[in-house]
Amino acid sequence: MSRIDARLAELGIVLPEPVAPVANYVPFVVSGNQVFISGQVSIGPDGLITGKLGAGLNVEQGAEAAHACGVNLIAQLKAACGDLDKVTRVVKLGGFVNCTPDFVDQPKVVNGASDLMVAVFGDAGRHARAAVGAPSLPLGAAVEVDGIFEIA
Amino acid sequence: MSRIDARLAELGIVLPEPVAPVANYVPFVVSGNQVFISGQVSIGPDGLITGKLGAGLNVEQGAEAAHACGVNLIAQLKAACGDLDKVTRVVKLGGFVNCTPDFVDQPKVVNGASDLMVAVFGDAGRHARAAVGAPSLPLGAAVEVDGIFEIA
Amino acid sequence: MSRIDARLAELGIVLPEPVAPVANYVPFVVSGNQVFISGQVSIGPDGLITGKLGAGLNVEQGAEAAHACGVNLIAQLKAACGDLDKVTRVVKLGGFVNCTPDFVDQPKVVNGASDLMVAVFGDAGRHARAAVGAPSLPLGAAVEVDGIFEIA
Repeated sequence: MSRIDARLAELGIVLPEPVAPVANYVPFVVSGNQVFISGQVSIGPDGLITGKLGAGLNVEQGAEAAHACGVNLIAQLKAACGDLDKVTRVVKLGGFVNCTPDFVDQPKVVNGASDLMVAVFGDAGRHARAAVGAPSLPLGAAVEVDGIFEIA
Repeated sequence: MSRIDARLAELGIVLPEPVAPVANYVPFVVSGNQVFISGQVSIGPDGLITGKLGAGLNVEQGAEAAHACGVNLIAQLKAACGDLDKVTRVVKLGGFVNCTPDFVDQPKVVNGASDLMVAVFGDAGRHARAAVGAPSLPLGAAVEVDGIFEIA
Repeated sequence: MSRIDARLAELGIVLPEPVAPVANYVPFVVSGNQVFISGQVSIGPDGLITGKLGAGLNVEQGAEAAHACGVNLIAQLKAACGDLDKVTRVVKLGGFVNCTPDFVDQPKVVNGASDLMVAVFGDAGRHARAAVGAPSLPLGAAVEVDGIFEIA
């Protein structure tokens, strides 16, 4: 068992089968030592987490949705590089939060993904990030996060 | 005639003169073997495709708008690298869909650009992608897509 | 004094202390010769510039907010590479404008950041860019801009 797989087990995180794209693209592309992963929507163990921050979903629920996006990113990353121990850095996350025009806590929501990266990868999990609002997201998902990772 | 130029002709796609930026930036930057192309709005042969998904435009019209963005990306890419046969991979597309808060078919819209990349570049056209909603886009465009490409 | 520091002084631009992230991530990650900088919100000398384009803020005020984002990007960039003379290219800016569904002048707003890059870095400041609308941004900020830079 690799070091990161052991860490995932320790955290009680079970990686899902990577979600297949719902369209004519691929979940990840490796370019040089960078892995670009497609936007992952908030699908958790119980299915798609839908809803809008500021209109029904609260910040905690939003952060759980972002956590689910993060788990899906890691599942794709494992598919991309085989062994997660090859990951040398989480470079950049782009977090899109389905929200109303008066919602301003996008950072607290996207923390659900950011905290996961640091929990799993340690210092290598500290990443650059953008967190913005979106009026709506695919399938009504609460959150979508894409990512760039560096591998050895 | 290059292989990709021949493929474009076969598909009946005529690349427009690359659209000049409407501001103080450039259409593309080459960094190492990556080409970063500025967000291309949905300008087709008949001019700017404006409108909002979920409020007037349907998914098919949205996909046509995304197709136009894709054609403009390829036109800029040709300007960037001279010969499209140098393109080794479409790495990442970022698709922004001008839509209402209840529109959830962003993937089907952005497919208009994704399908084009695969039609033109074959397997090298399979890319990572994010598709999200936006409350509004420059000049009222229906879709905006930016991209990262890898060249030899 | 480095060449770019002298240019900043000539322009009367004082770099702030880089803004600390409001969450569990970092302001920048260096990957190879690329620097990825987290989304910087519109915090100027007088504090956070909040508001929505199309509902209170006009284009000039939006461009000032984007300028503030740009100054914060450069402050983070200096922290990332020590000496701004190492910057060989501003590669890509991603501009998110807090706006109403009928606002269409995102490019003119994001110009506030783009013009700054060219004023400071000259030809090396000419960058690829995306400018899109967002229904809302962190803390109610008027503008958020992230960036990719190339260093020697």
